Amino acid sequence: MTIKEIAAKLGLSASTVSRALNHPEMVAPETRVRVEAAVRRHRYRPSTIARSLRVRNSQTIGLILADITNPFHAELARAVEAIARARGFTVILSNSDEDSERERASLETLLSWRVRGLIIAPCGRNQDLLQESLRTGIPVVQVDRVIEGLEADAVLVDNRAGARMAVEHLLELGHRRVAHVAGSLHLTTGARRLEGYRQAMAAGGMAPDEAMVAVGDFREEGGYRATLELFGHSANRNLPTALFVANNEMAAGAIRALGELGLSVPEDVSFVCFDDSRWARLMRPSLTVVAQPVGDMGRTAAELLLRRIESGRQQPTTYTLQPSLVKRQSTAMAPPEASLSWGGQDAAEPPGKRRSTRRSLARPAVT
Amino acid sequence: MTIKEIAAKLGLSASTVSRALNHPEMVAPETRVRVEAAVRRHRYRPSTIARSLRVRNSQTIGLILADITNPFHAELARAVEAIARARGFTVILSNSDEDSERERASLETLLSWRVRGLIIAPCGRNQDLLQESLRTGIPVVQVDRVIEGLEADAVLVDNRAGARMAVEHLLELGHRRVAHVAGSLHLTTGARRLEGYRQAMAAGGMAPDEAMVAVGDFREEGGYRATLELFGHSANRNLPTALFVANNEMAAGAIRALGELGLSVPEDVSFVCFDDSRWARLMRPSLTVVAQPVGDMGRTAAELLLRRIESGRQQPTTYTLQPSLVKRQSTAMAPPEASLSWGGQDAAEPPGKRRSTRRSLARPAVT
Repeated sequence: MTIKEIAAKLGLSASTVSRALNHPEMVAPETRVRVEAAVRRHRYRPSTIARSLRVRNSQTIGLILADITNPFHAELARAVEAIARARGFTVILSNSDEDSERERASLETLLSWRVRGLIIAPCGRNQDLLQESLRTGIPVVQVDRVIEGLEADAVLVDNRAGARMAVEHLLELGHRRVAHVAGSLHLTTGARRLEGYRQAMAAGGMAPDEAMVAVGDFREEGGYRATLELFGHSANRNLPTALFVANNEMAAGAIRALGELGLSVPEDVSFVCFDDSRWARLMRPSLTVVAQPVGDMGRTAAELLLRRIESGRQQPTTYTLQPSLVKRQSTAMAPPEASLSWGGQDAAEPPGKRRSTRRSLARPAVT
Repeated sequence: MTIKEIAAKLGLSASTVSRALNHPEMVAPETRVRVEAAVRRHRYRPSTIARSLRVRNSQTIGLILADITNPFHAELARAVEAIARARGFTVILSNSDEDSERERASLETLLSWRVRGLIIAPCGRNQDLLQESLRTGIPVVQVDRVIEGLEADAVLVDNRAGARMAVEHLLELGHRRVAHVAGSLHLTTGARRLEGYRQAMAAGGMAPDEAMVAVGDFREEGGYRATLELFGHSANRNLPTALFVANNEMAAGAIRALGELGLSVPEDVSFVCFDDSRWARLMRPSLTVVAQPVGDMGRTAAELLLRRIESGRQQPTTYTLQPSLVKRQSTAMAPPEASLSWGGQDAAEPPGKRRSTRRSLARPAVT
């Protein structure tokens, strides 16, 4: 028996019944008596926990993740939770799944519940709600990505520097045709990693070549499609010999695509991606990655938010943490220039049939 | 400027200020005038979203996961969200991190916000709160695990059958000394998978041997420690030749432990675990697993909960879905009986130094 059902039986509104139970002084005495009798009759037990709403909310922060199945976001959540919990806060999560509308619904829900603060990896165009949050005294810390122009704290990794590290590593191995599967370009992570790729290519003396860039969406399927776009043109004698992928989820799709095209890593294609993960370490060849300090990012964001909750609004600060290159088995020396166009085999033959003859050239660059 | 700060300036309580703004008829006219003047002066803009609390709550369900970094739970969340979203519901998540106290805090928070329903993979002793939830008209669907005795709906996988499949596969390959890293035994998943292991061993004519079972906690570190316990006794000439691990997280720890002990999979030890995942497919050797229908579990739980929200409480139902064995490279034929005690090498020598001489016997059981 719920409040609503009791209310329906008595011909009262649910809020009147609730008021009669929680603030009996606010309703007419006869209403109070009727409600109390109905409650006894139907064995309705008012929720003691509902009464702790005020206390609870004073201890809750909201965390909006972009993709819960991406280990980067899951690790971020765990780091935020560890700090928050040590300080007596409960973390409530929401997963926007890289969808602006879902992010909006989650933001509305968390803000309507008056959480004490928000940490968000923003994916959408919901600047208005985040600004309203700040205006009404709910601090916001952006993590991983930022909305340009929003005056809120942020904890980021140096995405341009990370992308440059990846590309410089490939150039040092002698690769010249280095392709890039970029992430969504409306996100700062996608845009800045692409910038870093271009900076490093230009610094290495490569002329810009837009055929070497395909844009994905930070999800496995997008990485798969973008990689097919880059490598699937069997008529293209200038296929890339190296690939830099902008995150771990797209990397899983890219590896699947390369496999279907019959291209081996690192024999045919050297491979680097942003983000470390358990599978990148355990798979064979293990993946060379640009590792983000994800634990530090989560902890920094949580500590910053808790400081804002305690001391109120201040000048927004951006913390930029440094990523690092972890060399494993997926990157190797570029083949000699002569064999760059797939050994001069018939270009009409699909790549899947052209098993590389360069296997002996491959030297895994394990550190 | 927050409500609290305006209240402090006026010497009023925050709830009076809030009431003056939202229900002006409920406060004295002079109070209303003072509050309105202060709001104008300090440019406080009452949150429009806070007013939608009632609407929002009518569309929100809570999902309490046991371990957000475990791909099983992340996939479960995604499946629940897909169904909920299609029906206009927002899903708010909480991660208990296999910690009963955190689960309690999350439950209190979500219940105090009056979510419309709860889906929970229970990890703790919070039956009282779940019962209060049901009593106050907030339906609860348990998923993955159940609290024995709680009269709530549940969506489970047949854990005993899954464990039997794993062990029967190992017995068919000729293994006799099959070890088990069990999960937390206070959880139904841990207890029932252990039961399934024992049933299959008994059905295969093996005498019970408690030295073949070590209990972990469903986390990577617990799996690592339990595996060291089972395989790290260099004086033990009867080391297991096969290992069944009760979930994916413990499997990652178990593989690390076997590697440190110098034992190869599947040459020295055949390996099966519960749960499929990207890394189990991509690693080498790829892992033979008991795959759970995680998408179906999440979708079934969400549909069941939405039905309960619409039609009220009914007799609790348990849906039991079937897992399936996926054979990959980590399981192989058992070595001939003669070599079972590690080829009669000096038992005092640590296993890490005793590189297997059985490599040629290994035949990956890939399907």
